[in-house]
Amino acid sequence: MKNSLSQRAIIRLTQYHTILRDYSKKGIKNITSSSISKLLEIDETQVRKDVKSINCKGKCKVGYNVVELKDIIENVLDYKVVKKAFVIGAGNLGTALSKYSKFNDYGLEICALFDIDKTKIGQKIDNKDILDLKDIKKYIETSGINIAILTTPNKVAQEVAEFIVNAGVKYIWNFAPTILNLPEGVHVWHENLIGSFLQFCAIENIS
Amino acid sequence: MKNSLSQRAIIRLTQYHTILRDYSKKGIKNITSSSISKLLEIDETQVRKDVKSINCKGKCKVGYNVVELKDIIENVLDYKVVKKAFVIGAGNLGTALSKYSKFNDYGLEICALFDIDKTKIGQKIDNKDILDLKDIKKYIETSGINIAILTTPNKVAQEVAEFIVNAGVKYIWNFAPTILNLPEGVHVWHENLIGSFLQFCAIENIS
Repeated sequence: MKNSLSQRAIIRLTQYHTILRDYSKKGIKNITSSSISKLLEIDETQVRKDVKSINCKGKCKVGYNVVELKDIIENVLDYKVVKKAFVIGAGNLGTALSKYSKFNDYGLEICALFDIDKTKIGQKIDNKDILDLKDIKKYIETSGINIAILTTPNKVAQEVAEFIVNAGVKYIWNFAPTILNLPEGVHVWHENLIGSFLQFCAIENIS
Repeated sequence: MKNSLSQRAIIRLTQYHTILRDYSKKGIKNITSSSISKLLEIDETQVRKDVKSINCKGKCKVGYNVVELKDIIENVLDYKVVKKAFVIGAGNLGTALSKYSKFNDYGLEICALFDIDKTKIGQKIDNKDILDLKDIKKYIETSGINIAILTTPNKVAQEVAEFIVNAGVKYIWNFAPTILNLPEGVHVWHENLIGSFLQFCAIENIS
């Protein structure tokens, strides 16, 4: 089912889930499409359409059952399937991502960090080891993990990406602001923070 | 013109711009839609459609002029209009964003950081002052800057957001993984990193 959803729908569903998690923690039982639409500043019709598309039904004037809708979203988007990954680069961004507790709620488990800085190697961030980048091939062979979150400086991103791909990485979530040129069969997802900000500016007419 | 583009189109154009910047630095004069499509793993027809939509013309078998297409994207997306902002929270993420040099290329200038930690206040990150959060109202009145990049821990995000909105903030780029409930007229853009990762998983069928 996940594959039949659009990219924007997946993003919206994760946003609904954030609200549902907050409501569920507070013990609130029901939520209306109108409340969701106001919190996210999106169209109410869109909310209803999205919820209908994942086969969740609401009650007139009561809304959706918070726990039910939360569970359905978790199933549809495979939150319970754990996806293991490691971070390349134990700098500020790599450290921030490794400490980002919300990832675990959505099935992303960061297992380790890799760096080349000898003063960092051997230390831990949030109980995750910082390992020597030169040992990554062995780590991949032993752990079977092949998803890398790339947070190196821009200048070395291409070189490091080639190195980790040779070591067995198949999927790269790339935070370095450069487009990587890699062999076919390696899947790269460019995290475009600036694109996101420009969207914000365009939509809200900030200038 | 910016407002007539879809959100996805804006993200793609910033990605094309990243490639064009790399090519331009290397002194490469032309680029084909096929090269762009391969580097970004997107459909070539989509690239052509996007470029056509911003009125840039290519030459058969030669492709687009790198500098020309780069300039057109910069104009369409207002990269030359500087948008000033400050970061709330001088932790790992706040520090990483403040050091993210690519923002400047796209017109986003981070002018300062705010925190409540007395050991951080008075220090500098990448030549930007870390200021006391309690002084933010005066800072906003003096500087006229009303865009905040919120990177506080989740637990205090709502409280801090209310505080900075009372001080005059109108736009919040929110990195805290919670939905903020704020008065009308305040514009919030939720940076959904996990939504982005789930898209990656859905598209590449990672499970």
